[in-house]
Amino acid sequence: MSPNLPTPEPTPQRMVFDAPLPLQSGAVLPGYELMVETYGELDSARSNAVLVCHALNASHHVAGCYGDDPKTAGWWDNMIGPGKPVDTRRFFVIGVNNPGSCFGSTGPMSVDAATGQPWGSRFPVVTVEDWVDAQARVLDRLGIDRLAAVMGGSLGGMQALAWAVRHPQRVAHCVAIATAPNLSAQNIAFNEVARRAIITDPDFHGGDYYAHGVVPRQGLSVARMIGHITYLSDDAMALKFGRSLRGGALHYGYDVDFQIESYLRHQGEKFSGYFDANTYLLLTRALDYFDPAAAHDGDLAAALRPAQARFLLASFTSDWRFSPERSREIVRALLANRREVSYAEIASPYGHDAFLMDEPHYHDVVRAYFERIAQECQMEARA
Amino acid sequence: MSPNLPTPEPTPQRMVFDAPLPLQSGAVLPGYELMVETYGELDSARSNAVLVCHALNASHHVAGCYGDDPKTAGWWDNMIGPGKPVDTRRFFVIGVNNPGSCFGSTGPMSVDAATGQPWGSRFPVVTVEDWVDAQARVLDRLGIDRLAAVMGGSLGGMQALAWAVRHPQRVAHCVAIATAPNLSAQNIAFNEVARRAIITDPDFHGGDYYAHGVVPRQGLSVARMIGHITYLSDDAMALKFGRSLRGGALHYGYDVDFQIESYLRHQGEKFSGYFDANTYLLLTRALDYFDPAAAHDGDLAAALRPAQARFLLASFTSDWRFSPERSREIVRALLANRREVSYAEIASPYGHDAFLMDEPHYHDVVRAYFERIAQECQMEARA
Repeated sequence: MSPNLPTPEPTPQRMVFDAPLPLQSGAVLPGYELMVETYGELDSARSNAVLVCHALNASHHVAGCYGDDPKTAGWWDNMIGPGKPVDTRRFFVIGVNNPGSCFGSTGPMSVDAATGQPWGSRFPVVTVEDWVDAQARVLDRLGIDRLAAVMGGSLGGMQALAWAVRHPQRVAHCVAIATAPNLSAQNIAFNEVARRAIITDPDFHGGDYYAHGVVPRQGLSVARMIGHITYLSDDAMALKFGRSLRGGALHYGYDVDFQIESYLRHQGEKFSGYFDANTYLLLTRALDYFDPAAAHDGDLAAALRPAQARFLLASFTSDWRFSPERSREIVRALLANRREVSYAEIASPYGHDAFLMDEPHYHDVVRAYFERIAQECQMEARA
Repeated sequence: MSPNLPTPEPTPQRMVFDAPLPLQSGAVLPGYELMVETYGELDSARSNAVLVCHALNASHHVAGCYGDDPKTAGWWDNMIGPGKPVDTRRFFVIGVNNPGSCFGSTGPMSVDAATGQPWGSRFPVVTVEDWVDAQARVLDRLGIDRLAAVMGGSLGGMQALAWAVRHPQRVAHCVAIATAPNLSAQNIAFNEVARRAIITDPDFHGGDYYAHGVVPRQGLSVARMIGHITYLSDDAMALKFGRSLRGGALHYGYDVDFQIESYLRHQGEKFSGYFDANTYLLLTRALDYFDPAAAHDGDLAAALRPAQARFLLASFTSDWRFSPERSREIVRALLANRREVSYAEIASPYGHDAFLMDEPHYHDVVRAYFERIAQECQMEARA
């Protein structure tokens, strides 16, 4: 185990899909493109593939750096790579930028071939299940019939769960971290406020701001600030910022007095400089809509019944966005179906963000789980 | 005890103060006006006065209705009135609209005599301590030397605490409900996002929107929506709204799908129709700045040492804005000073908003406490 091996520079690839993608809404996404990145080598039995599903502001770029620049590290670089918990010397890891996102895959910013204009407000609302279907086509293209594991945190964890239900024969293991079986009213409330901030920004122009040469930066910035509050715990904010003043004294005005204000403004401004507002709307709506139990009168066990995978779930004690109790709901439903489930509740003060952090106990749990999967893959390859 | 006696219709009065009010910031508020409402009769010994301090969007109009219209009920009408926990057959209750607010007292909407224009962005930032000083002048005007009690919830509770410290000889009892000794980083964060939503609304015009004949409605609406999320608990939202759909089916768009979205939008729109955006900035800043321990190296007991009053503190189990732990901090500091403190931690699912609700156990606690105060007042009147 050599945790500090460099990850070879990944090469993003663009996959073009000509067949339209039917969506949950009844709409259809015509021919589309997806950005994909892979790490490690697919074994001869094609048994060692791990699909990593991204959450809100992430992409296909999961691990490694471009051109040796550490600032370009993938969003889960501490988790995935040679010698890391998901060891790419053993696994072939796949990252896909979901349709509707803004990192190269077809989304609201893309030109709709039918009109020659950016999709903008006409881009269809897509769901977690739609993403799973799009990802399944990526696996088909790569010649992978069955995943050693599908894996994700937060919104990515929802995709992992949906994979296990929607394609039970294609998933050996499902690893769902810091996730929930659906959003609570409070979760939806935060999303709705964020969307209102974007939609009521005059630069939003009903979603067709591209034609006006502007972006709804202020609204997107406020939306991101709201999000950031929910990613961190009260304790984490107290530890990191407390009531510290930026300038040492109060200014008796509405400019930055407290460090926490400075931090949030910076996060908002940075985000609004690179993220697409329509994608933000779309991703938050996919979160709102995810609710596998809804079609089963709220019975989550019934909703998860088709799943055949073995499961690892993990949650973080201070995560108030998707609290441990929400993971436990999933665990209980899986156990009711007599599925094999490992569950780790990790003590962490860092809130929802903890799932992206290099927390030793958390990484040890994931490492141990993937070592077991690797052994299975080896046995399968020998068989 | 007859809880259903009608409260006589109150008469708001305008008090004009010619003497400038020196502020914590170093600025001075020149001659100003305050709206005041009183309920019940001041006894001959002038010993039965109770000052009620308002929180964010409330005013001098604490109890009773105007013209028999139940929609005009005062903001704490379930707590204050004849036969109610603070019984106005025994107490003379005073409500004051604080300077900087927008319900008739001098604030950003008022015309600055020096310029003939609305104060707007030039209205000085005021603090909890400034409000206490302004309220003290109201008592002087009413000929009240000493309060039987000063009382408030949330931001109003901070004023009650500041009264006990700033005017120890003038306060017999301090009743501080659902409050905190200062805001946490997370509390400040929510305020900051709300302010950014207002300030970045193009209709804000740097705070001088009055001259443009507009108000920053969208920003104020988003700010209020954020506030509302923090007033309700996750459980309260789950109970009241859950994931209920307004139209019975998903619409695959960004209009209202969920009841919680409809509720929040309605609250935001209603609020932005009557509340002044500059006042919202000012009140949230007063919250941010309140921190009596700051001048004592963070030692809250030292900060509260001047207080001579007896105290009732109450908190609500599901209040995550000002959690019970924040009230316990105050209790511990008062006990360290050997002050007499009653503390009630009320089981309630309704979050911070519970302090405004008619919760029987909560009202019983307040009623019992004020019955004791009433007995003291009677003894004092006989002496």
